[in-house]
Amino acid sequence: MNRTALSPTPRSTIQRGKKRAVTERDALDAVLDAGLVCHLSVVVDGSPLVLPTGYGRDGDTLYLHGSSGARSLRTAATSEICVAVTHLDGIVYARSVFHHSVNYRCAIIHGQARVLEGDEKVHGLRVLTEHLAPGSWEHTREPNKKELAQTVVLALDLSEASVKVRSGPPVDEDEDITENTAWAGVLPITQVWGEPQPSPDLETGWDTPVHVKERISRAVS
Amino acid sequence: MNRTALSPTPRSTIQRGKKRAVTERDALDAVLDAGLVCHLSVVVDGSPLVLPTGYGRDGDTLYLHGSSGARSLRTAATSEICVAVTHLDGIVYARSVFHHSVNYRCAIIHGQARVLEGDEKVHGLRVLTEHLAPGSWEHTREPNKKELAQTVVLALDLSEASVKVRSGPPVDEDEDITENTAWAGVLPITQVWGEPQPSPDLETGWDTPVHVKERISRAVS
Repeated sequence: MNRTALSPTPRSTIQRGKKRAVTERDALDAVLDAGLVCHLSVVVDGSPLVLPTGYGRDGDTLYLHGSSGARSLRTAATSEICVAVTHLDGIVYARSVFHHSVNYRCAIIHGQARVLEGDEKVHGLRVLTEHLAPGSWEHTREPNKKELAQTVVLALDLSEASVKVRSGPPVDEDEDITENTAWAGVLPITQVWGEPQPSPDLETGWDTPVHVKERISRAVS
Repeated sequence: MNRTALSPTPRSTIQRGKKRAVTERDALDAVLDAGLVCHLSVVVDGSPLVLPTGYGRDGDTLYLHGSSGARSLRTAATSEICVAVTHLDGIVYARSVFHHSVNYRCAIIHGQARVLEGDEKVHGLRVLTEHLAPGSWEHTREPNKKELAQTVVLALDLSEASVKVRSGPPVDEDEDITENTAWAGVLPITQVWGEPQPSPDLETGWDTPVHVKERISRAVS
């Protein structure tokens, strides 16, 4: 397992040089840009709460959003948060139970988010929308005042983040390899797009639009 | 979105009757059994931390494990934790930005985990292994004393849990449907197994074993 540090805080990870930092930053962007849903963690009444939610990245900022009625979002707006984006790439079958593992890419970000208003809020929503559904901001109706009021948009700086990646075959004990009594290898997992399912209330005559067609010609993550 | 409650605590959800509770409990088991990785959240020095990790379920117990050297696991062993298992099933393209969504299944569990020792610990590891890689407990070398000492196994009761599911087409405003200026539908996402990749250090003569072959004949989640 390779652990690459993006910031030198105690809860992020250690060691970095200028050259490595570039690679690490690229790795962070790659993990975030390839994902669709993050897990957002907040502390509510002293207890941890984690829940899945959408996100988007623009430069050094991660955008999160949710209903202004959601307690988790209100908490996230006023206290420290932690966000994880994880891709599961495969199951690692080792020759011992102990060395079984998974191949994955994961980014963890810590920080205090900022609640956005006005143009910044609309920009954040655009980034979130284009991450979830590229092309949809132009193709569909933009949010009206009422919808904007019902939505909280948060901006989280990516300065305190770490990336962890495991890839490749199992790493077994020499004795277990020599013993040769178990199969060892990796069972890859990938996410794939299915065929677009037009909404039952969509009028006849619609082809799948170009921005959706283009998307399914690419990998999911 | 249908939210089904599994327990009546304030941080879980509302309303339950006997009949519904059965359905809900089935839904919880289904979401957990179909997943491979959970997101575990703990509070460290007052701040939230979330990270992906393996798990397994047996009856009313969720098992988690990790290195005894990991701070997150040591924290999880002595304080309240929150665990999320999430499946992303599709992107929901609505006629407005606001109604864009995702189809998903998610289970959230709250509680105080218990550190396992002795036979319980070995049972927990077996459940974890068989969840990650069904058949591997029998096929591969079981953990020795040193490996057991390096591993912390936690048991979390499933009594305080909630399940959230969104499925189906977008739900748009009547005016947007009438307007008919945007496509609407769902882009499904599924996880699929790739071909098994034998480890480079595997001796020649191995076929992919039956427990791995059987697994890839089934869906991932």
